[in-house]
Amino acid sequence: MKEILVIGSVALDTITSPSGYSKEILGGSATYFSISASFFAPVNLVATVGMDFPEKHKKTIKSFGVNLEGLEVKEGRTFRWEGSYVKDLNCAETIETQLNVFAEFKPLLPKRYEKSKYVFLANIDPDLQIFILKKIAGKRFIGCDSMNHWIKNKNKPLKNMIKKTSIIFLNDLEAKMLSGESNMLKAGRHLLSLGPKFAVVKRGEYGAILFSKDFVFMAPAYLLEDVKDPTGAGDTFAGGFMGYLAKMDKISEGTMKNALIWGSVMASFAVQDFSINRFLKITKKDVNKRYKTFVRVQRL
Amino acid sequence: MKEILVIGSVALDTITSPSGYSKEILGGSATYFSISASFFAPVNLVATVGMDFPEKHKKTIKSFGVNLEGLEVKEGRTFRWEGSYVKDLNCAETIETQLNVFAEFKPLLPKRYEKSKYVFLANIDPDLQIFILKKIAGKRFIGCDSMNHWIKNKNKPLKNMIKKTSIIFLNDLEAKMLSGESNMLKAGRHLLSLGPKFAVVKRGEYGAILFSKDFVFMAPAYLLEDVKDPTGAGDTFAGGFMGYLAKMDKISEGTMKNALIWGSVMASFAVQDFSINRFLKITKKDVNKRYKTFVRVQRL
Repeated sequence: MKEILVIGSVALDTITSPSGYSKEILGGSATYFSISASFFAPVNLVATVGMDFPEKHKKTIKSFGVNLEGLEVKEGRTFRWEGSYVKDLNCAETIETQLNVFAEFKPLLPKRYEKSKYVFLANIDPDLQIFILKKIAGKRFIGCDSMNHWIKNKNKPLKNMIKKTSIIFLNDLEAKMLSGESNMLKAGRHLLSLGPKFAVVKRGEYGAILFSKDFVFMAPAYLLEDVKDPTGAGDTFAGGFMGYLAKMDKISEGTMKNALIWGSVMASFAVQDFSINRFLKITKKDVNKRYKTFVRVQRL
Repeated sequence: MKEILVIGSVALDTITSPSGYSKEILGGSATYFSISASFFAPVNLVATVGMDFPEKHKKTIKSFGVNLEGLEVKEGRTFRWEGSYVKDLNCAETIETQLNVFAEFKPLLPKRYEKSKYVFLANIDPDLQIFILKKIAGKRFIGCDSMNHWIKNKNKPLKNMIKKTSIIFLNDLEAKMLSGESNMLKAGRHLLSLGPKFAVVKRGEYGAILFSKDFVFMAPAYLLEDVKDPTGAGDTFAGGFMGYLAKMDKISEGTMKNALIWGSVMASFAVQDFSINRFLKITKKDVNKRYKTFVRVQRL
């Protein structure tokens, strides 16, 4: 088992969904990723928050064993995002984004993190992702995420960054946008042509696809009756995926395929409640049970 | 192995897709279903066409071994449909529908067809579907399809019909519309509550879901680079599904799950060319090969 390093955001989210309204709840890519990955391996988180970040949220993240040594507290307010899923449960409508201290995020990596073998660069400015990559040079398994904003406005640095990673995680719209292909198979192959050995395209309630030179593997999403808040599902997915790999410390067709299922399982828990609340109520046993059920039912 | 009976339409389609324009090509639910099912078991087709229906199309259907004893030729013109996939390759925009002789379709079942064990009621007026069901009473495995038009305008007869079938095939929008549920798991369970033992929800490029009381099984759609014309994919899916069951003549969790994969495989061929053209160029060997590839890659 190896440790995982994640660099991303820790935020306060305000969410409206058909299931209700929740104000300034714990969110952020690094939060979702690290809590999900913590079910599999030790996690080191690097992010920044403002002085107003509630101590209870820190305690919550810590309660999953996540190492917060790299969580910098800066003068100012914490990154805030407000979104709504009222029109479409599958797609957030952004109501407001306040970057606050996140606007000047310059990740400070504790020295020992530079040796991390499993690293996830959550959705941040590609220039920052490159900045981190330079520090953790060497033979690493590096995952990255991005978004439409960077694909459009920082395309070149983004592609430079992707070239140096092992796996890219994008949702289907982002994959089509970055590749310029509307066909999913062509889009997946285009992502691989940018450099990474693997590409994962997340399709929300339709599951996810793992592309590699040698195979294309698809995992349907676990069907749920109760989808309360899809925020963070993608980062939770990546957390389960990378967490499982760090636990196994082996990159093979078998571990990669299973990682896609574990990612899918973790994401299925994330959407069942607001914020990371569902994870406060489950144990590794519940996660294993859902994985086993999924695999058993899907077996021919 | 048992014979399958399909009652539906044989039509002349005019299709515009990003891959081109094809005028008055062979189409219709019974056409797609029967050609697909013919790869697995003997098929008897019941439909009606006009005097203008080209002899060459009859020969094409017959070349798959489909029995056309039940294809009635009536005074008048053949059912015509014109559709376009230019705006959305996943969803046909209807440009024109000319029902012609199909408007007065009153299926004439050759007597021996009344003993059919495997029957597919393609998308026609629910009153006609009930009319057929009454003739083929007894212990049968009956599949049915429908569409938004009947869900809206003939809801009661439709539900009466569904109650008497073994399996219903709908696409996701139809499933949500008929059930009144936007959540897929709830929609699937609602379909089962209407009477059939199984329900299949087709999600186009995202695959299909098989619902039963005891399990929910999902098959991702085979990824393709070349999607030329999605017309008939759903009926081709049902043809592969029901054809495989008729071949095995066994209804179990195992055969039902495999049927979903075979349906998916057959549909993947259908969309690779206009009309049923792709099937003119493949053999059972090609079908088996794609099935095996799919199953091998999807195995964990």
